[in-house]
Amino acid sequence: MKDILVLRLGHRVPRDARISTHVALVARAFGARALYYTGTRDKEFESNFSKIVDRWGGEFKIFFIEHPFKWLDEMKAGGYTVIHLTMYGININDLLDRLVTLNKFIVIVGGEKVPRKYFEVSDYNIAIGHQPHSEVAALAIFLDRIYFGRELDMQFPDAKHYIIGSKRGKYVVGDKNMLKI
Amino acid sequence: MKDILVLRLGHRVPRDARISTHVALVARAFGARALYYTGTRDKEFESNFSKIVDRWGGEFKIFFIEHPFKWLDEMKAGGYTVIHLTMYGININDLLDRLVTLNKFIVIVGGEKVPRKYFEVSDYNIAIGHQPHSEVAALAIFLDRIYFGRELDMQFPDAKHYIIGSKRGKYVVGDKNMLKI
Repeated sequence: MKDILVLRLGHRVPRDARISTHVALVARAFGARALYYTGTRDKEFESNFSKIVDRWGGEFKIFFIEHPFKWLDEMKAGGYTVIHLTMYGININDLLDRLVTLNKFIVIVGGEKVPRKYFEVSDYNIAIGHQPHSEVAALAIFLDRIYFGRELDMQFPDAKHYIIGSKRGKYVVGDKNMLKI
Repeated sequence: MKDILVLRLGHRVPRDARISTHVALVARAFGARALYYTGTRDKEFESNFSKIVDRWGGEFKIFFIEHPFKWLDEMKAGGYTVIHLTMYGININDLLDRLVTLNKFIVIVGGEKVPRKYFEVSDYNIAIGHQPHSEVAALAIFLDRIYFGRELDMQFPDAKHYIIGSKRGKYVVGDKNMLKI
């Protein structure tokens, strides 16, 4: 696994609760190590997510961050590359060759209006296409490309619950009775 | 382009307004033709989205649908394959060879609790990995795989506004003054 951190900007309570949860779920499921977020501290979001991690496994963590630029500077000094996903950036199709060589990086995903400074502090401003869509989708596509799709086969060895894929059933190992429909 | 329709299940107002908007944005940006949705009719969601289409181009449409199973039966009779995205299904990595040959299909993405009947009516229940994440991400990854990533280069010829990707700028063609930061 690569060392990938996600920075989610401008979390608002309660407006962004679900979108930020989707961002965090995607970050975990697609092989990032932690989510950092700015905006408003949201302990409910954090504690709900820790229950998901407890159930489905892994070591994914969420941290609120008060001074993102200071943090980004420190992380850059520590060898992290900073990638900002924005529809205004360079199309990922034109830069993928270079991006897949990175092993240690931060992926920034925006909220509504991203301050100009993030465009400047980032090593790469990358567009997952130039149409408006979703930070959730952008993060997923980015990580999927970086891992060549192999992240979808990922398992968490310490999971209390996991799924066995099937044609029409619903098999969850670890439920009191294996659930089947 | 392929003939792809997205069916989004169980839209609730106002709880799902943003997630459904992200689903619709992804559907449009990743090469689907229309979004159908069940749950509660939401005219605000529909009219807001039509403004986006007006600005960014294309012919994407949103339809509320009252009798999804009847509709699915009709569509299947008309030659559409039905694909349901669910973490319980067969991993897309194991079926992609077959899926990319399809040219006319419906992609179902769930809400909270998907009725068993959708598992049965679908030709394929497909998992975008077996970890919990997001219907927005699942739809994006699915369409990205189907189109081999080329959808990210897509342009809408009738767009009033479009973006020219750049390293650090923000260029929108069609704004009164081309916006640059």
